[in-house]
Amino acid sequence: MPSIDYSKAVIVVDRILAQAGVPDAHAVLQRDLLLDAEMRGIASHGLLRLPRIVERIANGVADPTTRGHHDWRAPGFLHVDGQRGLGPVVAQAAIDALLERASTQGVALASIANSNHIGMLGFYADRVAEAGRCLIAFSTSEALVHPWGGRRAMIGTNPIAIGLPTGNGPFMMDTATSIVSMGEVHDHANRGAPIPLGWALDGEGNPTTDAAAARDGAIAPFGNAKGYALGLAFELLVTSLAGAAIGREVKGTLDSTEVASKADLFIVIDQNLAPVAGFLDLLRAEAPAEGFSEVRIPGERGRDLRQRAIKEGIKVADVTWSRLCELAGEPALTN
Amino acid sequence: MPSIDYSKAVIVVDRILAQAGVPDAHAVLQRDLLLDAEMRGIASHGLLRLPRIVERIANGVADPTTRGHHDWRAPGFLHVDGQRGLGPVVAQAAIDALLERASTQGVALASIANSNHIGMLGFYADRVAEAGRCLIAFSTSEALVHPWGGRRAMIGTNPIAIGLPTGNGPFMMDTATSIVSMGEVHDHANRGAPIPLGWALDGEGNPTTDAAAARDGAIAPFGNAKGYALGLAFELLVTSLAGAAIGREVKGTLDSTEVASKADLFIVIDQNLAPVAGFLDLLRAEAPAEGFSEVRIPGERGRDLRQRAIKEGIKVADVTWSRLCELAGEPALTN
Repeated sequence: MPSIDYSKAVIVVDRILAQAGVPDAHAVLQRDLLLDAEMRGIASHGLLRLPRIVERIANGVADPTTRGHHDWRAPGFLHVDGQRGLGPVVAQAAIDALLERASTQGVALASIANSNHIGMLGFYADRVAEAGRCLIAFSTSEALVHPWGGRRAMIGTNPIAIGLPTGNGPFMMDTATSIVSMGEVHDHANRGAPIPLGWALDGEGNPTTDAAAARDGAIAPFGNAKGYALGLAFELLVTSLAGAAIGREVKGTLDSTEVASKADLFIVIDQNLAPVAGFLDLLRAEAPAEGFSEVRIPGERGRDLRQRAIKEGIKVADVTWSRLCELAGEPALTN
Repeated sequence: MPSIDYSKAVIVVDRILAQAGVPDAHAVLQRDLLLDAEMRGIASHGLLRLPRIVERIANGVADPTTRGHHDWRAPGFLHVDGQRGLGPVVAQAAIDALLERASTQGVALASIANSNHIGMLGFYADRVAEAGRCLIAFSTSEALVHPWGGRRAMIGTNPIAIGLPTGNGPFMMDTATSIVSMGEVHDHANRGAPIPLGWALDGEGNPTTDAAAARDGAIAPFGNAKGYALGLAFELLVTSLAGAAIGREVKGTLDSTEVASKADLFIVIDQNLAPVAGFLDLLRAEAPAEGFSEVRIPGERGRDLRQRAIKEGIKVADVTWSRLCELAGEPALTN
């Protein structure tokens, strides 16, 4: 796997986005989002998404020029028509509006429809926490997850992220409500590796360890019935507030031709917070269980990986990096 | 297990609360909360909690007369000093204030400290959903759950509930972030039954199937690292907003003598919602997987059980019902 200088990755991604007609201020957000995920080790939400974004712009289902239309339906409630904008551009514009509004209201909420994939939710949670506020973020996706006790993919991977300041840096947690990402299943299939029993059902709705069969099936919710309940509740909440598509009607997060019909929800809270950094120190100091080397704080491993990648270079899958260099019209140089 | 007429249960519980000095309007809430949990099959949050509530009032760590002090720190942000009030009384007063505020603000949030155990969060979520609004509810508890990779109980069971109107009745989801409740572990210990491996650690932090040993240990988060991340994020969010105790410093949810130092968080959203009842119908119609008889909607089994209990009587554990009759000064009659 080539290790790419951070500065070189920025140049390549920016060139691709500029060629696709993305204004500079919007390109920065889309680039930072993808690089952030890649550097935190979440390749499924990283640079491999860029070719599809470019195709979606070319096909007219993503408009790189808009930040979305804002409609304050109440002093604390913002509805955003994303106008087919790029996910992170529309999302960040909404969050900026919420940050301003929450500074007087205490809390402000945005429901977003008609916007493209917003990527790793933790990206936004981390930034809001860095700015000293709390963010609770939700997003839906195409149906990839089976209901607990069901056979078919009926609900999205429906992640939640929470970010807050601790008094000593941000805390950020970001998790899908599926047991694993479909990207991980594809990765196993590409390597010809089996998947653990319990990850997925095949196209007939039966448990499988065959990653290739699982691609046509459904991923399990994490934590069985509880994760299903959470993922479903998030999808109902986000979708009914935004007036967006639900279940198998959601399109446009994995293809290059359909208008994106999922929804997003952000809640920003602006209040003086009691510091919780001391409690996180207590957790870090806990004796690890058999088979573990430490008690981890969610989000910290990704933050460490990110720091290291900025200094030492970003590990990007060969096929992904070659494709980006081709798109950018660059020779596929490693360092 | 005796089956108790709903009307008789109401009489017995109301008498106990009246004797303890709980004003009628407050007793109705505390009674409805406990009976609701009992009837939905969540005995751990049902009538067995009543003797402890009475003891807490007698010991001065619960004040049955207050609804809590409300401090609107911003137009959408209510901080509540619960003044040691009864959990459901303080919670419902806060929710009533949020419902009114959200009708003009779109969203309103309450952080609550210094209030007693608020019981099953789904009780509130169901009521708000019945009233046509959305509720997102969180609460913390004493440390009963080990961090993923840790040995000791460091965080609460930290439940979340979400309620919303669907266009055809309410949807309500309520789940702890622990794999099981400590009440369930106690129940196994009392029956001398083993617990499944993975539910809990013993007092030394090692996996155990001995329910008695698990009582002195820690329950697992549900869904491994993901459930830990969620439960921790909820505890940090709720605690830092309320300025309450955290981790092992939380007291007063399981004993009769300590001031309750956990915290609660409610978010009420008041907006026109796209109906999602049709999607729930699609889920119900899905073919069940091997070993399942149907695809269930979270909250519905409890609602059905509740309806049946109101008609046919409430199954209450012998020991619980005898204790209540004793407290009420009634002969322990079944129907």
